[in-house]
Amino acid sequence: MAVYTDVSDDDLETFLEGYDVGELLSFKGIAEGVENTNFMVITSRGTYILTLYEKRVKAEDLPFFIGLMEHLAMRGVACPTPIRARDGSALRTLCGRPAALTSFLTGVWQRRILPPHCQGVGAALATMHKAGADFALSRANALSLTGWRALYDATQERADEVQPGLAAELGAELRALETSWPSGLPSGVIHADLFPDNVFFKRDRLSGLIDFYFACNDFFAYDLAICLNAWCFEPDSSFNVTKARLMISAYRRERPLSPAELAALPVLARGSALRFLLTRLYDWLNQVDGALVRPKDPLEYVRKLRFHRGVGDITAYGIK
Amino acid sequence: MAVYTDVSDDDLETFLEGYDVGELLSFKGIAEGVENTNFMVITSRGTYILTLYEKRVKAEDLPFFIGLMEHLAMRGVACPTPIRARDGSALRTLCGRPAALTSFLTGVWQRRILPPHCQGVGAALATMHKAGADFALSRANALSLTGWRALYDATQERADEVQPGLAAELGAELRALETSWPSGLPSGVIHADLFPDNVFFKRDRLSGLIDFYFACNDFFAYDLAICLNAWCFEPDSSFNVTKARLMISAYRRERPLSPAELAALPVLARGSALRFLLTRLYDWLNQVDGALVRPKDPLEYVRKLRFHRGVGDITAYGIK
Repeated sequence: MAVYTDVSDDDLETFLEGYDVGELLSFKGIAEGVENTNFMVITSRGTYILTLYEKRVKAEDLPFFIGLMEHLAMRGVACPTPIRARDGSALRTLCGRPAALTSFLTGVWQRRILPPHCQGVGAALATMHKAGADFALSRANALSLTGWRALYDATQERADEVQPGLAAELGAELRALETSWPSGLPSGVIHADLFPDNVFFKRDRLSGLIDFYFACNDFFAYDLAICLNAWCFEPDSSFNVTKARLMISAYRRERPLSPAELAALPVLARGSALRFLLTRLYDWLNQVDGALVRPKDPLEYVRKLRFHRGVGDITAYGIK
Repeated sequence: MAVYTDVSDDDLETFLEGYDVGELLSFKGIAEGVENTNFMVITSRGTYILTLYEKRVKAEDLPFFIGLMEHLAMRGVACPTPIRARDGSALRTLCGRPAALTSFLTGVWQRRILPPHCQGVGAALATMHKAGADFALSRANALSLTGWRALYDATQERADEVQPGLAAELGAELRALETSWPSGLPSGVIHADLFPDNVFFKRDRLSGLIDFYFACNDFFAYDLAICLNAWCFEPDSSFNVTKARLMISAYRRERPLSPAELAALPVLARGSALRFLLTRLYDWLNQVDGALVRPKDPLEYVRKLRFHRGVGDITAYGIK
């Protein structure tokens, strides 16, 4: 929740001259998004989002992210569409940072998740997976098994500061997942971070997906497992099986899940819970004094992890 | 630069149902403004600013601020126009805070001030002063002499931490102003905080004034003195007499300044410099750990104060 880079009106006007977007009428820093600097830019032609990529996003990954959004948008996925400048480039520079202008998506993200939202997310996720199938670029998932091991090594010494016994629990979980992690499941481009603040709705109808800056190539079913964790738990940490059933069923109507994918869901959900637990734990233990962003509670994902560890089979998710 | 209160989509939709503004399409927290929480709200009817008043703004002052904006807007001043709800009220409640919806002003604020901007500000300030003349409510200026004395008392013990000798300099200045402060100058509603980030331009043409939350009743010429300090110094602290001349001349074309007002300008400019120096000093010495807002440098206003103290008469401002 922060603007990291201040852009002057002069700099912005010079930047926009490179585009065929009309005359600048207004721009405002948006107090959302923790990785990048975002501005809402209103011109005589319409409304846009201007993103300046701060150092947490690697410059070499940007062609993948920008190209993916363009690819998905061309295939009808409601997501920010990169605007190409007059010189044909969609990725340029502003205030010394890589910068991109994209279309503005209307809709609001849901703070209170209802079952129909989960249904919409399941369908949109499957549609995105299909639309990304013929995307030419690929990007490895840096936050899969190897990345978890690295995060574990970086946090295990101090993990018990957050909860006694946490280091041992995470170590055991990591070893279990390293043994049981599936291979050979259907793969492709996944969003990998489809949390409620990255999905817009108008009334209760899904109107778009944003923030593709964790997108990568991995199992499709792992993306669904991320969404189960992000959308189907109640604030009191109880698992809402109705939401899960609606989400998975809606996904399957767009893209059928193989028996192997279904069988792997519990372990994928454990892996997904561990992934967000570890990054949150890392951020929690490495808080920067005076930082603008308050780290998220890692313990929320301890509870989610334990739930999935106790799951016998996919009937726990309301499906057969 | 912070959103202080998070508003859920449900809360916002319920709130907007009280207005005739169409259907909610989007809302984003704006990373500007340090006193209140601001959102840009886009509906099927248009774009609006939603402001939630945080505790730094006194609730009992809100009818003055909201009423003033409505009064000025009705008289053609380009400023945010409060939108009245279906029940006729322009000030309502959201998330436990007083809240108002206003029209959205296009334009961008200038990071690099050029002489024509100062000319525009002078004219707009005089127009605002005339338009506010028949506004029925009034509000005392809490940040005039009495307020400065209180701020001085609260900061003098530690002022030398910021610059050796500062406490003595401020004490002497305050005593001098208490003796020489004028009385009986033409008065009315002043903006009292017309800094560059509160003035919007399209190209180089002034398109609107915002942020009336320091507005109060005081000498019109004091408001002009605030603008001299806010707009006519260069980043290296040198005083740009061309900017000052353009600003004051443009003001006088809209609202003539009496000989007494002109003669008082140097002392009013000293007072204005002291006012911002003291509030910045107070904020500097009372920084909250982990606060989202970085306090502004008080020493900038020490330099401005010294400039005006060395001014013989108004020829130093490029006028006669």
